[in-house]
Formats: sequence, structure tokens, C-alpha cells
Amino acid sequence: MSAIEKVEVLVTGAGRNFVTLRITTSDGVQGLGDATLNGRELSVASYLRDHIAPLLKGRDSTRIEDTWQYLYKGAYWRRGPVTMTAIAAVDMALWDIKGKVVGLPVYQLLGGKSRDKVLVYGHASGSDLPSLIDDMTEFRERGYQAIRAQMAVPGMGGTYGVRKGAIYEPAAADLPDEQLWSTEMYLKFAPDYLGKVREEFGFDFHLLHDVHHRLTPIEAARFGKDVEPMRLFWMEDPTPAENQETFRLIREHTTTPIAVGEVLNSIWDVQHLITNQLIDYVRTSVTHAGGITHLRRIFDLAALYQVRSGSHGPTDLSPVSLAAAVSLDIAIPNFGIQEHMVFAPETQEVFRGYPQFAAGYVTPSEAPGLGVEYDDAAAAKFPYDPKYLPVARRADGSLHDW
Amino acid sequence: MSAIEKVEVLVTGAGRNFVTLRITTSDGVQGLGDATLNGRELSVASYLRDHIAPLLKGRDSTRIEDTWQYLYKGAYWRRGPVTMTAIAAVDMALWDIKGKVVGLPVYQLLGGKSRDKVLVYGHASGSDLPSLIDDMTEFRERGYQAIRAQMAVPGMGGTYGVRKGAIYEPAAADLPDEQLWSTEMYLKFAPDYLGKVREEFGFDFHLLHDVHHRLTPIEAARFGKDVEPMRLFWMEDPTPAENQETFRLIREHTTTPIAVGEVLNSIWDVQHLITNQLIDYVRTSVTHAGGITHLRRIFDLAALYQVRSGSHGPTDLSPVSLAAAVSLDIAIPNFGIQEHMVFAPETQEVFRGYPQFAAGYVTPSEAPGLGVEYDDAAAAKFPYDPKYLPVARRADGSLHDW
Amino acid sequence: MSAIEKVEVLVTGAGRNFVTLRITTSDGVQGLGDATLNGRELSVASYLRDHIAPLLKGRDSTRIEDTWQYLYKGAYWRRGPVTMTAIAAVDMALWDIKGKVVGLPVYQLLGGKSRDKVLVYGHASGSDLPSLIDDMTEFRERGYQAIRAQMAVPGMGGTYGVRKGAIYEPAAADLPDEQLWSTEMYLKFAPDYLGKVREEFGFDFHLLHDVHHRLTPIEAARFGKDVEPMRLFWMEDPTPAENQETFRLIREHTTTPIAVGEVLNSIWDVQHLITNQLIDYVRTSVTHAGGITHLRRIFDLAALYQVRSGSHGPTDLSPVSLAAAVSLDIAIPNFGIQEHMVFAPETQEVFRGYPQFAAGYVTPSEAPGLGVEYDDAAAAKFPYDPKYLPVARRADGSLHDW
Amino acid sequence: MSAIEKVEVLVTGAGRNFVTLRITTSDGVQGLGDATLNGRELSVASYLRDHIAPLLKGRDSTRIEDTWQYLYKGAYWRRGPVTMTAIAAVDMALWDIKGKVVGLPVYQLLGGKSRDKVLVYGHASGSDLPSLIDDMTEFRERGYQAIRAQMAVPGMGGTYGVRKGAIYEPAAADLPDEQLWSTEMYLKFAPDYLGKVREEFGFDFHLLHDVHHRLTPIEAARFGKDVEPMRLFWMEDPTPAENQETFRLIREHTTTPIAVGEVLNSIWDVQHLITNQLIDYVRTSVTHAGGITHLRRIFDLAALYQVRSGSHGPTDLSPVSLAAAVSLDIAIPNFGIQEHMVFAPETQEVFRGYPQFAAGYVTPSEAPGLGVEYDDAAAAKFPYDPKYLPVARRADGSLHDW
Repeated sequence: MSAIEKVEVLVTGAGRNFVTLRITTSDGVQGLGDATLNGRELSVASYLRDHIAPLLKGRDSTRIEDTWQYLYKGAYWRRGPVTMTAIAAVDMALWDIKGKVVGLPVYQLLGGKSRDKVLVYGHASGSDLPSLIDDMTEFRERGYQAIRAQMAVPGMGGTYGVRKGAIYEPAAADLPDEQLWSTEMYLKFAPDYLGKVREEFGFDFHLLHDVHHRLTPIEAARFGKDVEPMRLFWMEDPTPAENQETFRLIREHTTTPIAVGEVLNSIWDVQHLITNQLIDYVRTSVTHAGGITHLRRIFDLAALYQVRSGSHGPTDLSPVSLAAAVSLDIAIPNFGIQEHMVFAPETQEVFRGYPQFAAGYVTPSEAPGLGVEYDDAAAAKFPYDPKYLPVARRADGSLHDW
Repeated sequence: MSAIEKVEVLVTGAGRNFVTLRITTSDGVQGLGDATLNGRELSVASYLRDHIAPLLKGRDSTRIEDTWQYLYKGAYWRRGPVTMTAIAAVDMALWDIKGKVVGLPVYQLLGGKSRDKVLVYGHASGSDLPSLIDDMTEFRERGYQAIRAQMAVPGMGGTYGVRKGAIYEPAAADLPDEQLWSTEMYLKFAPDYLGKVREEFGFDFHLLHDVHHRLTPIEAARFGKDVEPMRLFWMEDPTPAENQETFRLIREHTTTPIAVGEVLNSIWDVQHLITNQLIDYVRTSVTHAGGITHLRRIFDLAALYQVRSGSHGPTDLSPVSLAAAVSLDIAIPNFGIQEHMVFAPETQEVFRGYPQFAAGYVTPSEAPGLGVEYDDAAAAKFPYDPKYLPVARRADGSLHDW
Repeated sequence: MSAIEKVEVLVTGAGRNFVTLRITTSDGVQGLGDATLNGRELSVASYLRDHIAPLLKGRDSTRIEDTWQYLYKGAYWRRGPVTMTAIAAVDMALWDIKGKVVGLPVYQLLGGKSRDKVLVYGHASGSDLPSLIDDMTEFRERGYQAIRAQMAVPGMGGTYGVRKGAIYEPAAADLPDEQLWSTEMYLKFAPDYLGKVREEFGFDFHLLHDVHHRLTPIEAARFGKDVEPMRLFWMEDPTPAENQETFRLIREHTTTPIAVGEVLNSIWDVQHLITNQLIDYVRTSVTHAGGITHLRRIFDLAALYQVRSGSHGPTDLSPVSLAAAVSLDIAIPNFGIQEHMVFAPETQEVFRGYPQFAAGYVTPSEAPGLGVEYDDAAAAKFPYDPKYLPVARRADGSLHDW
Repeated sequence: MSAIEKVEVLVTGAGRNFVTLRITTSDGVQGLGDATLNGRELSVASYLRDHIAPLLKGRDSTRIEDTWQYLYKGAYWRRGPVTMTAIAAVDMALWDIKGKVVGLPVYQLLGGKSRDKVLVYGHASGSDLPSLIDDMTEFRERGYQAIRAQMAVPGMGGTYGVRKGAIYEPAAADLPDEQLWSTEMYLKFAPDYLGKVREEFGFDFHLLHDVHHRLTPIEAARFGKDVEPMRLFWMEDPTPAENQETFRLIREHTTTPIAVGEVLNSIWDVQHLITNQLIDYVRTSVTHAGGITHLRRIFDLAALYQVRSGSHGPTDLSPVSLAAAVSLDIAIPNFGIQEHMVFAPETQEVFRGYPQFAAGYVTPSEAPGLGVEYDDAAAAKFPYDPKYLPVARRADGSLHDW
């Protein structure tokens, strides 16, 4: 038995805020897990430091499944983003350790390679059509074979997904950015610019679009119908997913594939969507959905219903999360696509060894475990700086889903 | 507009650990909200202190609904016990403030009294039949008209719900208590002692029993059938509620009423159970299910399907929670029953003015707002002392739901 | 306790016929409720005066929920427009009183403002295309951002919704107007003029249309598909709602949003439509659907299924009804739109203080309670003058839904 | 054409309060319709006198279907007890006229006799077991072959259905009787006395029992199971019928036949219950469900699903109602049973010629039309005296369905 000896919760603001769990065994093996919950980081850090760390000390680090059940069932109050992110971090760290102990990359413990490389999609955006086209061109030139396109709706400051500089960062210090939202303007505008993108770049690449929970089901159905000629790879989060049965309504009207899952945290949160085949891609993330152990089960359920994976993976999940996600991506039979953004230089300074992009794909590290190293000295240079994700409000001042 | 000026997160170990939110407006009115999540207290405290408090300062305290939506939608990562408990605390505090501003108890803002008093049930237990009978006798003598009966299964140390001294406290310092669980022994044993209780005390009171998530659906169906002659008021949590459709299986086999909800946190968590009428009582708590604003919506949905309330209310929710729960209990049309335990002396020292038990019922305070006062000086005497709820393991060492 | 001391049923023909309930408490506080059921006014007046008033005297005015249940369950013969309108009037009056007692507008007791202002839609109409365009122009100039467009079908005298003078008044003295109806003419004609409206005025405002129960389900499906390019905000009452499951057929064929509810009176009347997400807007009115207490429950159920409110609100509901509706509109999270017509001068003379239109929106009064005053002297000038809503007949003389 | 010339709304308190519609044609033929809605009589009287009567004058009395549609669709605000009772009265009166014009009893216009006589059930009750047995004995001796048995639950004053003297009259002057209700006591008590009744009187007659909306679905399921050995003809209204899908739950647990319908008013109110075969007998009444024209349609729908008729028929429906109901009973193929009570002497003085009981059956009058005459002079002796049906409250003071 290789007992857990030390449990550290590392918080840094390296580019974006990250919470990282580091577990060290009695044999001196270290494992890393990502515990970042954008805008609510310290609550997860407290969950890990104050409530989970004391439980881990002395536990057999090889009992990954038992530890998962122990933290899930033992919490009694289960599910939800904070809890599942904390458990996920432990799970990732234990897989990292197991890989290092046996001297193999984690994917080798998950069944080995099912594919040679992992298709990723990048985020192109623009404040107007020319700048969107420019950005798309750049992504194409960098070799992306799948690109998500988002454009600012005129008159709506801070449209979701539109990058201001080199780095997309929706979270704001102080108070959340309050953005205006108009469904009508979006519904008229978005199909139009997506059409222009296809006109410009043709159909020899995957075009994605993120609706980001902004539409009602019937609006989403209308949108899906309208964009059918653009043959989207998927429309993401067409409507908030609390009311899952409603996806049937969207489904009856359009063959535009649907991707859902980034705000969901467990297999029970996606069970209805998957078993009723209301979606085509499940986008739960390894960090927010219970780690490798649990996300693998979600993907296995999805496979049964011909639903593919589409792991959520923006840069507010750390490189450890990317490494864990790619470990699954390369191994599972029903992989779909992996979200991919370039980490900020500060992030790259702290985390090293994560999967790198090349010609439209990433490949997992061949180093033992997850292959990511955390540089404490570099991390110390970037203190945690609290930020908030934006909120959306309609013209009458009422809240809309952001 | 009465702006929020101060937001304090108060943590005390007064009898049990409690997290209390105190909001003070620019007019000096104070409101209290319970934010206690047994065993994960500091994570909620962090959520409130580090992430929510900065958002609240300067907000209009009268906009309760908008604040609820702001915290729910604005978190982006939604649902789950930590998030919903934090939101609940804010919501309770704002209703408390509104009541104080208008000089009325909160229930008056919820439609006024639908009943004169609130039926509660107490927790009788015993390590063997004689001690259970003794305990039941005492509860009957104290005037309880509804009693939950739990007895230790022989050979199973630390059976759920069995009180050791005057106060039931399952949470343990250091590490969680690891309790042995044997479904087979329980299934043979429990119907027998429940039958003995009816033989001894007759049918002129409500008898409840908590299965506490321990059975599979078909076992729960068998148990429900076996206890039909004992005419239980309800069997609580017969099986874990992640897989909700499975309650249909239990339902097809027994008319023993079913109560579920204490580990669920939102209306979406109970929507399937309620709209398919798979349960008879919904036991979500005001503290863990989003506060008065949200729990009222759950109870209203329940009413439409003839499901009654059965608010979770052990002493690991604070007296503020009890006051808020009873405000709803007295006002809603479809009240069922309220769980009730006597607070420890230390708790009573810190919290004053909460609903008191008399002759089988409690009644809400007539003081403005929720009517509870928090004594900072008393609280300071009882520092937070981290504790854990137990876990259950089967004879082979594997984890079972506790 | 503030007991109900006086219950008055006030009937006036001020512009249109209105029945108003006035309740006075032992403390001299007065509350108003609208009890107007166009064309059946005196039956509701009798229900209130002869059967409900004697029950109210001496009751505790603060027990709003209990009174609602007492009148609903106590009637034994439940539901339906007369009963639910009578109960609604009592409920509104009691909320009005509660607001006045605490010195706050009613919306403050419903959770406070969720938005700053309430989007409304007006009724443009024309006997031919030029006059419709003129009317639309006028509405646009008055600042309406949402407009319902109805045009007379050639050869069909008295088409629904077409205003003759400044005031729309479909009710006729003596006998009901018997109007010719031809589905074939309408189906050919209406999509055409709605298209012309979009050509003329573009897409920067909400266009609504009321089918007014005239089509069979398959005709409604065809109509919905035909008008998709006009991007209606909604099509209202596409088919009579007695046979609710049939909306699924419409739903399978079109993404044109659907609004239903003005002839429905309870949450049970809309339960199937909402929980099966067969509609997008629920249009039950506060006057005909049991008042604030009950309509709030309908809207809460709707929210769970992403259905928004679209409160019915023509001028045959009194200004008291508008004030109550707007109290809910401003407070609920899932508000959609509010119907709005300008009250006749005589109506304005009798009722004062109701929400006023400005730049496309209305806002609630900040006066305590509902904020509306009733001028008995003015009311006395306008005696009740019985009128009937029209009926529709097909070319063969058979009755059609009007 | 035989035009309607006179429309009179007659109100009397002859034994119980009755509202009767009398229509006289230009040929001097008179028809009677029952418009009695117990406890809300004057509202229906107003509906008829103030709103419907002016519409009827001059109409062709032979167009019964067109008049039905005209009143239903022309009201615009449709359904509900007041509206449907008013329409029912007109419908009955027109069928009465049509029968008189052709010189035939109404049943001859409905297809003639399907049976020779109509099985009825009477109401036996008792304040304790001996008095119930006595009452049952008397009913058996009078020849009843179907008897409903209700007994007072000890300690619950005014149990539903328990006759105090010769006449059962639950309605009270002044204020509604407030009766205590305890589900637990009832559930324990009722199966027991129904068992005793079977022990005493055997199985050679039909035993019925009315639960009168008092149970939740799971309680009703339990009750239905418990009384299976007593082989009830039916259990009536086991749970309130607003939430219709819930009857499936009861249905899964018991083969005790279910009868529902007295508080429902239209074919749409029973559509789900019947088409899902959730009931065995439909108990809508000719007076409260739209008259002969509409009730025939309800029974026709029921036949399709092997559901039989069980017309509601207590003495708060007038002898005109009984005559109309029996006209349908004798004619339809799927007749089940007819409720029957002996009218008070005062009622008998005013109404003459209605179907008489003999040896367990009634038979329709062979007089033209419905065969009932109304004695104005006798009616004048008994002024209307407003009364209320009782309400039920639980021990905590909250309202229960009566």
C-alpha cells in the first residue's frame, strides 16, 4: 500500500485563476488534479482543504474507486459543481499517481489508444464580419479543422464568446459584467453570419456554434432549422438544461446536432438527455463531472446511445484538466471532439507538459501519469485575483441566462 | 431602496456546527439566513464570504427574486448542495429583512396562516426493543403525535438514527464513523420491530421510519409491502434518489407512502419524482434547497400532484432554518409534517426566538421577520469543530450509501 | 387580526361593464378586486353578493391562502369562469389590503422587482391593408415595441380584432353580433398581410397575431408554418384548447411560438399544455384564473417548463386587473409580455392610479397595495348596460368558435 | 318554427333550494330544466335570467344542438359549474318541449328503451354500527338492491353522508358547517364497518361507498386494497379529480371499481379519465354537465372504453333532473346505476310526475317530454333560503376537501 501522505491545495492566478490539488504518497509520488471552478474557486479550495484533505491522509492511494465512492457517498450531500469538482481533483490526482507508479501514461490504464490523435476545435470570433473572417482565416492557417464561430451582435456590448484581445476572458474583477441580451437580434443575426462564414470558407472543415443557454426551446428549434444549410458540427447549449425533456421539442424540428453538458456535473445530470438520445455530444468536463473515473462512465453510457464526447475545455480549466481529458479522448471508442484554447503565457509558465496542438489535433503526453508538472515558484508570482463570470440582462432589466 | 451594507458569515460550533449569514441594510435592519451543510460547512462559508458577499453589497434588499436569479444564473455553475445552501441563506435573510421592514412575521408575506399550528415528528430510537419502547413512551408522554422509530440492528454497530445519549449526533470528529451495513439483516429485522411498536402503542399516532437510502428498488418494494400492516405515515428515502424513474418499481408494489428529498437541492431535482407522482412527501429543506423563494416553488409544484411537504429539519440545520421552514409550513396549503428535534443547550444559547414545541405541534413566532436572534457573544464561546457524517460499509468492506 | 367588515359588489358601465369587489376591514382599510366577466357580469356579481359576501364577513383578512382554499374547496362545485373570477376578486382585494397595511406596493410582497418595466403589446388593426399600415404606424409612433396585427378578411363582416373607431368593443347590446367565418379565406389571406407588415415595418419590433380559436389543429399547423418567415412573437389560440393533446400536432409542424390561456381558469386547465411544453406563453388572466395567489402558481409551473407569461389584458378587464397583473409581471422571473389597451375615458374617470403606458412599457404604481382607487360618484354616472360578445357562423349557418 | 316566447327562472326553497328554468314557445308548449347548483343557486339564476334569457327569446325551439353550441361557444368563457348548469337547464327544457310537441317521452327521442327499468342505489348511514345496520335493513326491506353505506367516524362530528333524520341535508344556513376530518381515523375505521355490513347482509346486493374526495392517491390505493374483500360495486371519488393522471396510481393497486364525476362539468373534464380507463363509472350529472345533449356524449365516449354511467342524483338536484337522467339511463347501452334519494315532502308538492321507485328500480314516466310538472302556487309557499355545503378541516385547522 502506498498511503497518501500530503494533500496540498494550490491556488494561483496564473493567467486565470486555478485551483490545483497535489497529493503526495508515502513513496513520494505526486499526483495533480484540477479543481478550478471559475468564479467560485475558493469554495472548492475550502471543500478540499478543510473537509477532504483530512480524510485522505493515510488512505491507500491505489483504491481510486473506493475513494471516489467514499467522497461521493460519504459527503452525504451529493452532486453539484463544488462537490463534484473537489472529487474530480482527487480522482485525477490518484490516476496521475497510479500512472507514475507503473510508469505509464494514464491513457494506457484506460485501455490504451483507440486513436492516434485527438481532434480539437478552436474559438474564432469577431466584433463584426470582417474581423470574424480574419480570425477564422487565422485559425484555418494554424491548421484547425474544427472552429467555433461567434460574432458580436450589433448594439449588444460584450456578446458571449467574442474575444477582445489575444485571450478570451469573460470573467471580470470587482462585479460581474452585466451584458445586454436580445434574443430577437441574435436570432436574426447569427444564422446570417454563420452563412457568410460557410460562403467564405466552404464546407471542408467543422463549423461549431455556441448558443450558450440563451434560447427557449421553441426559439432553439427555430434557430436549429435556420442554420441547417450551414451544416454545423453542433449547436451547443441551445437552451438551459434544467428542463431536459424539452430537448425533444428542439429535436423534432431540426437535424442540427446538439451538444450539452458543461454546466452538468454527474451521470445523473445527463442520464435523461442521453438515454432519450436528445443530444449528440455530451460536453461534461473531467474537472466538473467527477474526474476520470466518473467521466469515463458518462462516456460509456453515451456510447450505448451513439452519443459522442465533446469535452468542455476552455482555459479556465487548467492544463491538468486538459491532460486528463485527452487521456480519455484518446482511449474511449466514442470520442467526438475536444475543445481547445491556447493557455495564457502565465499559465504556461506554471503548468508544463500538457498536450500540445499540432495540425488540428492534440496528442497526450507519453510521460507517466498525466504528464503535467506544477511550478510552485512560478505560481507564487501570480496571486489569486477574484473574478466573476458575466450575467446577461434583457432590455427590461430582468436576468437572462448568460 | 434599502441597500445591503454589511454581509457577515458567522461560524459557530454551538452544540453542532452552524454557518449563519447576517445581512445588514443601510437602514440598520438585520436579516439572518442558515447556511449550514453538515460536514462541509466551511466550503459554504467560503462560497458566501469570498464569492457572494462582494456581490451583495449595495444591492437593493427588496429585490429578493432578482437576487435569487442573480446568484443562481450568475454563478453559471448551478445546483448542488454548496451552491443552493449559499443562495438559500441569502434568500432567508432577505425575507427576514422584508418582514422586519413591514413589521410582520414572514408567514404573513406568504399568504398568511393556512393552519393554526404545525404538526411535527420526533425521533425515537433504541439499541434494542425495550429501550426503543421506553423512548417511544417518552415521546408519547411529551405529546408527540408523530414519531419516527429506528432501532439498532443486532450486530450492526452504529445503526443509522439510533441516539446514544440525549442528543443524536451522527457526525464524528476526526474521521467519519465507519458503520457496518447488512441489507439482509435489516430487511428481516425492521418490519418486526415496527410491528412490535404498533402492538405496544396502537394506531392512534403517526409512525414513521427512515430507510435512509439503504435499499435497492426491489428491496424497497419488498420492505414497503412487508410494513403495510404497520400503516406507516411514510417510509423515508427507501432507495437513493439519483435514479428517479426507479421509484416506479417500488410504487407498483406497495401503498406504503414514500418521502424523499433531504439530499436534493432544487425543483429540478424533484421534478420527475413529483410530476410522475412517485412520492407522497417532498422533504427538501429550506436551507439546502434555495431558501423560502425556491422551496415555496417546490411545494407549489408538489401541491398540483397531491404531494405534501415534509420538511427535513434535524438539529444540524440551525434554528433560523426551523423558523423559515415553519413560516412555509403554516402558510402553504399542502403541508404534511415537519421534522423536529430538540436543539442542544449550546444551540439554544446562541439562537433565540425560534418556534417552540408544544403538545405535538410547533407554531411560528409572531415577531417581525423570522423572529430569531443570534447572540454573537454566546457563539464566540463555541468554536467551530469540524466533524464528519458516517459512512456505511458492507461485510466485504465495500461502500454502501449511509 | 384585521377582520373583514364590509363586502361591496360594485357594478358600473363606465366605458365597458365592470364588476368590482370592495372589501373593507375593521381597521378601515379597503381593497379592490376585479370580477368582470365580459357578457356574464351579473352572474359573477350574484356569486359574490349572494354567496361569497356572507362568508367573508368577520374573516381574518390576513389569511389570504386559507380564504382562497375556503372559497375554492368550500364551493364544492369548482373551477370554471364564474367561480374562478369571483374567487380572483376576493384574492386581489386581500392582497391590496395587505399591501396597504404594510405600506408597500403588492409587487414588493411577491419578491420585489425582477425587472424595471413591463413590456406590453398593443392591438393594431385595419379594414384593409392601407388602414392596417396606418394603424401600425401610429402604434409604432406611440412607442409600442410589440404589436398585434389583425386585418379584416374581405367579405367577412366584423372580423375578429378589427377596431371600428378609437376603441375596440366587440361586445354588442341587444343580441350578439353574428359574424361570418371562412377558414379558407383566412388561411390564404392572413399570412399575406402579415408578410406585408414585415415588409413595411421590418423586424425590429415584436409582431403578434391572434388566431382566436378559429382553426383545427392541422390548419393551425399549416398556418404556423406559413407564417414562419414573418417571425411572429406568437400566434395566439391557434385552435380551441379543450382538446389539449392536439397541440402536439401543431407543435410537430412549426416553430412559430404558441400562446394560449385567456379562456382557461385554473392551473389544472393549463397543466397538460405546460408540462408537455405544448405552448410557449400562458395567457391566463389574473381576473379569470383565481387572482394573484393562483396565477402566481400558474406562472411558477410555467417557469419550470420555460413557458413565459403573457397575461391576457384587454379593456374588458378593469384597471384593477391591470394593476394586479402588472404586480405579477414585474416580480416573476419568467415574464413574457403583457397585453395592453387604452381604457375608455369613462373607465379612466372611475378607476384612478393604475399602471400607465410609456415608450412601450408600463410600470407598476408605487402606492401601497395595488394602487387603484374607485370613484363611486363617477361610477354612478354610468349604469350597467348588458352586452354580448359576438358569435361566428360559417357560410352554411353553423356555429364556429368566435 | 316554434319560437321561444317566454323564459322564466323559478327559484324555490321547497325542501331544498331549487332553480328551475321554464321555457314557453309561441305554441304555448312549456319545457322545464333543472338549474340547481347547491349553495350557489342565485349565480346560476342570474346567469340564466340576466344573460341567457334575452338570447333565447325568438329562437327556434327545435334547434337544440345549435342552441347548445350557441350558448357554449357564444359565452366565450366556457366550462365550469355555473355555465354548464345554465346551459343544461336550457337543453333539458328544449328536449322536454320536443317530447311534448311530438307527444312522446324524451327517451323515445334518444333511441327508445334499451332496458325496462333503471337500477338505483340508496343511501344508508348510521352514527354507529347498530344504527347503520338498522338503516341498511330498512333499505333492504324497501327493496333496494344497491345501497351506499356511510358511517360516522367516532369523534368526527358531521361525517360526510351520515343522515341525521329522515332527510340527508348537508347544507347549512348562515355559515358552512366546519367538520373535522382525520384521514387516519377514516382509513382505520371504514374498511372495518364495510366488512361488518357484508358479514350481516351478505353479498346478494350491491354495496357502494363514497370516499368523497378525502384521500390522497396513495391513501386511496391503500383503501381500495383494504376493501377488496367487501367487493364494493364502486368506491366513489377516492381522491380529488383535478389531478387526473394520478388515478393510474390507485388503479395499479386495486381492482375495487372507481366512480368519479359529480363535480365535473364537461366531456373535456372526463376525457383523460375515460380514455385512459382510469375509472369504471362516470358520475357527471345531467344538470351540472350540460344537459341531455352533452351528457349523452359523455356516456357515448364512456361506452367506447367500457365505462358505465352512474348518474349523480341526490335530492339537491330537482325531480326535473331525475326525469332527464332516467330518460338517458333507460336509453343508453352502457347504463350502470342511478343514484336515488327520496325527495322531501315539500319538493314532492312542487314537482309532480317524476320517476318513482319500486322494488329497487325506477322507470321513466310515459308522459310526453320529461313528464314533470311544476306547481307555481306550491313553490311560492317555500321561499329561497340560502344554504352552504360544509367544509372540512384537519386537526391543525387547515382546509381539507369536503
